[in-house]
Amino acid sequence: MNQVVILAGGHGKRMKAAIPKPMLQVLDVPMLGWVIRACEGAGLSRICVVTGYKAQYVELYLGNRYRTALQAEQLGTGHAVMQAEKFMQEFTDGNTLVLCGDAPFMDSETIANALKLHEAQENAVTVITATLEQPTGYGRILRSETGIAAIVEEKDATDAQREIHEVNSGAYWFKTKALLELLGNLSQSNAQGEYYLTDTVGLALERGWKASAYRSENPDVILGANTRKDLLHLNKVAQERVLEKHMENGVNFVNTDGIIIGNDVEIGAETTILPGTILRGKTKIGAKCTIGPNCLIENCSIGDHVTLNYVQAFESEIEDAVKAGPFVHIRPNSHLKNGVKIGDFVEVKNSTVGEQTAIAHLTYVGDSDVGKKVNFGCGTVTVNYDGLKKQRCVIGDNCFIGCNTNLIAPVELGKGAYTAAGSTVTKDVPDYALAVERADLKVKEGYSLKKLKSKLFPEDGGKK
Amino acid sequence: MNQVVILAGGHGKRMKAAIPKPMLQVLDVPMLGWVIRACEGAGLSRICVVTGYKAQYVELYLGNRYRTALQAEQLGTGHAVMQAEKFMQEFTDGNTLVLCGDAPFMDSETIANALKLHEAQENAVTVITATLEQPTGYGRILRSETGIAAIVEEKDATDAQREIHEVNSGAYWFKTKALLELLGNLSQSNAQGEYYLTDTVGLALERGWKASAYRSENPDVILGANTRKDLLHLNKVAQERVLEKHMENGVNFVNTDGIIIGNDVEIGAETTILPGTILRGKTKIGAKCTIGPNCLIENCSIGDHVTLNYVQAFESEIEDAVKAGPFVHIRPNSHLKNGVKIGDFVEVKNSTVGEQTAIAHLTYVGDSDVGKKVNFGCGTVTVNYDGLKKQRCVIGDNCFIGCNTNLIAPVELGKGAYTAAGSTVTKDVPDYALAVERADLKVKEGYSLKKLKSKLFPEDGGKK
Amino acid sequence: MNQVVILAGGHGKRMKAAIPKPMLQVLDVPMLGWVIRACEGAGLSRICVVTGYKAQYVELYLGNRYRTALQAEQLGTGHAVMQAEKFMQEFTDGNTLVLCGDAPFMDSETIANALKLHEAQENAVTVITATLEQPTGYGRILRSETGIAAIVEEKDATDAQREIHEVNSGAYWFKTKALLELLGNLSQSNAQGEYYLTDTVGLALERGWKASAYRSENPDVILGANTRKDLLHLNKVAQERVLEKHMENGVNFVNTDGIIIGNDVEIGAETTILPGTILRGKTKIGAKCTIGPNCLIENCSIGDHVTLNYVQAFESEIEDAVKAGPFVHIRPNSHLKNGVKIGDFVEVKNSTVGEQTAIAHLTYVGDSDVGKKVNFGCGTVTVNYDGLKKQRCVIGDNCFIGCNTNLIAPVELGKGAYTAAGSTVTKDVPDYALAVERADLKVKEGYSLKKLKSKLFPEDGGKK
Repeated sequence: MNQVVILAGGHGKRMKAAIPKPMLQVLDVPMLGWVIRACEGAGLSRICVVTGYKAQYVELYLGNRYRTALQAEQLGTGHAVMQAEKFMQEFTDGNTLVLCGDAPFMDSETIANALKLHEAQENAVTVITATLEQPTGYGRILRSETGIAAIVEEKDATDAQREIHEVNSGAYWFKTKALLELLGNLSQSNAQGEYYLTDTVGLALERGWKASAYRSENPDVILGANTRKDLLHLNKVAQERVLEKHMENGVNFVNTDGIIIGNDVEIGAETTILPGTILRGKTKIGAKCTIGPNCLIENCSIGDHVTLNYVQAFESEIEDAVKAGPFVHIRPNSHLKNGVKIGDFVEVKNSTVGEQTAIAHLTYVGDSDVGKKVNFGCGTVTVNYDGLKKQRCVIGDNCFIGCNTNLIAPVELGKGAYTAAGSTVTKDVPDYALAVERADLKVKEGYSLKKLKSKLFPEDGGKK
Repeated sequence: MNQVVILAGGHGKRMKAAIPKPMLQVLDVPMLGWVIRACEGAGLSRICVVTGYKAQYVELYLGNRYRTALQAEQLGTGHAVMQAEKFMQEFTDGNTLVLCGDAPFMDSETIANALKLHEAQENAVTVITATLEQPTGYGRILRSETGIAAIVEEKDATDAQREIHEVNSGAYWFKTKALLELLGNLSQSNAQGEYYLTDTVGLALERGWKASAYRSENPDVILGANTRKDLLHLNKVAQERVLEKHMENGVNFVNTDGIIIGNDVEIGAETTILPGTILRGKTKIGAKCTIGPNCLIENCSIGDHVTLNYVQAFESEIEDAVKAGPFVHIRPNSHLKNGVKIGDFVEVKNSTVGEQTAIAHLTYVGDSDVGKKVNFGCGTVTVNYDGLKKQRCVIGDNCFIGCNTNLIAPVELGKGAYTAAGSTVTKDVPDYALAVERADLKVKEGYSLKKLKSKLFPEDGGKK
Repeated sequence: MNQVVILAGGHGKRMKAAIPKPMLQVLDVPMLGWVIRACEGAGLSRICVVTGYKAQYVELYLGNRYRTALQAEQLGTGHAVMQAEKFMQEFTDGNTLVLCGDAPFMDSETIANALKLHEAQENAVTVITATLEQPTGYGRILRSETGIAAIVEEKDATDAQREIHEVNSGAYWFKTKALLELLGNLSQSNAQGEYYLTDTVGLALERGWKASAYRSENPDVILGANTRKDLLHLNKVAQERVLEKHMENGVNFVNTDGIIIGNDVEIGAETTILPGTILRGKTKIGAKCTIGPNCLIENCSIGDHVTLNYVQAFESEIEDAVKAGPFVHIRPNSHLKNGVKIGDFVEVKNSTVGEQTAIAHLTYVGDSDVGKKVNFGCGTVTVNYDGLKKQRCVIGDNCFIGCNTNLIAPVELGKGAYTAAGSTVTKDVPDYALAVERADLKVKEGYSLKKLKSKLFPEDGGKK
């Protein structure tokens, strides 16, 4: 069985982050998540993540989905892999892939193709490499006739070796048995006193084992980040790829500024995404929509022909031809059915809103089940919380809710019920009934002449 | 009479759009609209648009403003021009310009100058060309001593010909009579079995007619789009030009990210446009304003010294020294007079708001006529819809509207009228009168101790 | 004593601004402010600003913090410095630095190092220079064995001189006595009839005085702006520097589009700033916050672990673990204590909000003192203005304010007080009491069948 060891114990001091470097995000996913996804895309699901600095963050993120092994001391990449020895001993027949948890653009195809070469050539170790225009700083690959002769670090390289553009990605396929033997023979006899995984190549060659390199077509497999500026660059690279994918699918972008779209977002053809829009998580958007400017959507399912203008929506379902905005907040567990119209300054939370219902302005619909073709007056509030518990409002089809109405949950309005503006509705309203809570309107003549005369007629010294 | 045939029948499959390619937008105008504008700018108003794929979208857009001719089958550019034969036969004395409907940056000056050369040289056909740094993919112009010798497509070009940087824009001036004769002689005998307009040049030369080329100073006349990525690029080019024009006019940009400004927008000197601002249509903005961040303005007329912060405004007039935002929605047919102040979470719709009136927060003013120096309390609602029809509220000068007041239209408040907070005003209020709808306030002592004791005093087991 | 003369009288016609060019802003500070800051950073506080075009704007900005001298006529840079003669005569023993008020990136280190060289070499004049890749348009520095031989303007330069990449920044250190004598000997005998400060170098050399140049490491000291496009470029350069500084401090940026951060803003490590966020003035943000997208923050102090999503905040204090947004407006003099939660469409103004208080939606809290763990219902309004004066609301710990409540200031709610939804509270409420203002709720059966039958049952011809 083939398996993976991912090194995720590094700190990344220059990031000034109090979390492990592989937990820093590219788009909305930790770099470690990108690496795991690449493994799974290549059919590798037996994975051990080696933790180290602030291991608890990695554990929390993995949530028992994968094995982990703690590297308590930071004694080099070879030492890190040693921590997974128990994991590897469980299946020693196949091959082990070693990956860096902070090189997020390693891809499934590279992993799979490298394995093919590794197996076809019966290598003990196959280094994954790439060719860079600017190789400075990376370990250079010295090829031999049959494979590789060595990996030379920048600082140890001759001028001629520095001209080599093929560099080490830090990812390797090993025969598992070979790896276990080589790890046992690594030495700390170097300036830093660390165990280097790179040294396994030399040790393998000493034993007369085959060591070779698989050169990836994708130079981004090399990319990592030591600084926040590097990390911003990784985000840009990732974002550009995502945008290109969507453009190929027929998504329209007039201007991509401020747009951030996660890897898992799906968008239909002829949908326009306007600037400042952030789409996260498992969001799926249909065709012929206009989303933005400045929407923020997380884990929503959105139909076709939807228009969202300055809308934030979370964990909700929005059906076809819904129109919302500007300035709307759809909180989790909401379901807006076909043709719902939502205007400005409206919050919907944990509610179902029926077909063609209109919520035009300054309204809060929370914990409610709303029928079809309901019309909400401006300033309506579903009073779902009494200080102790949250309860629901039920509003029938064709209801007409007057402006500044309070609906005190639990309460049910029947079909076509009507509430008068300014009423507080404390009990159920039958079908087609009107509920009105209203005191008498008193008009006091000349009131403001007395109260406000100094303001209204300052020229008169307030005397009038 | 000179006339124009615009080819607008193409699909653009790689766009994955179910509309004709020339209907795809650059800034907020279809590419076809850009081409028509260039014609009109050159004084050409007799235009026939050749439609094809999804012709109804072009028809809808043109709305009978221009002639159209349907190309039912897609048999090449020459075949497309043939469809306009009836149109051209009506005036055969002058010249006919053939343009691509998906090359939006053809400009009036190029069109006019090419015509001058065409007429001065008495050419049968004058190809409009430009010089590109990267000519790959375009038809190369082979010049002769007296004009042009041929247009050679990339695939047919010799290595030497590929070094030519002058390329065919796909736009041509013809003597109309010559064009009609040449079209009649085009043949389908080529690999694709199509009629190519390019072949007219060779046919003209065969007849001993003069064929020449006009080289535009503006290489962008060549630009078209086959992919969404190309279309994004056209948008960037167009946007950069618009921004440069405004900067030359003294408009201030600190950061242009997310800014989209349509071609027809006018902006006065010393106005600052902040990031994320979208200005569309016939919007006109005065001098010394601050617009943005994140405004969206369509077809509005805005005075001087106006401050709009996170405002969306549509089809409205905003006079001098108005201040609005953040989070404001001005819907069509609104008129904000000098010095109006609008705060946060306010919608104004189809209303006039008088000088120096203040609408500070959480208010909806719809279908209303509001006087000068009115003060709206927070949460005011003009209740303009009773479920059957929309009616108006009239509010006199110097009125003071209490918070959470409902004004039930139709209703009129006289000058200096005052409404008490929380009142629902169902009848007219005379000048200087106070309208108050209010029940008695009852205070129930110890209420929350009973109701909420378990919550307020959990340490006490709810016993207190 | 060393002193500074800053030239700030220019107009900048191509900017189309009716203010002096040095008053145009880079980030949120006039260019003149950048120059003054650089002087002060180098320990120079004796400064005279020479004004000219629209001098009142400079006077207003300086507000008596620095001396000014008016150049009534625009007769060249030498003439401008002459206007500061009285200022310079007060202390003639030391050195005088002459700076351009529209070259904002002159830095303190360059100023200080140039002075060191100036004093060590006992120069009469030391020109501050820099080396540019593209020197076209700038005055070239002709070095001699002991210092400089001349400054040659572009138009007077030979081809060989044009190859020189060291150029004049327009900034100079002079021995004050030497400067005063040289200014007295400048002549207007040139094409423009102006007094050029550059000519002082030749005059000094004629007298056998030492003239040399200090070459700054920072080529940006040369940068100025003649057009709005140049000014936009200065903003980009300034912004990039600010962002790099914050990234080095561990601040996280996923995408920097639309982000504008002022020079004086401080941000803690591991805080993420999302696109479209503008941070101005003396704003200080703690660690591990998420700010944005689309926040606008001016002069606020913000704690750690704060989340602000679409929040505008001005002159306020926001403590740790506050969560606000989307669509929130915090106006000046607000203080949100630890753990406050603010939802959507909420304005807070001139108020203190106690620990863990929740203001979830559509609420205005103005001129109020709010205790701990208060819960505001949706639509609550603190009615702080009666048309004449603003007064305060006091709300005790653990209060529960019902939805659409009006609190008429001045009013005080005791601890744990409760208000019923829709009530207008006009008098104080004791601890643990409930205040309720409510008329009877009447239900009229069949109301909408009569009123709305034509709408509800159109198929029935309104008869039902």
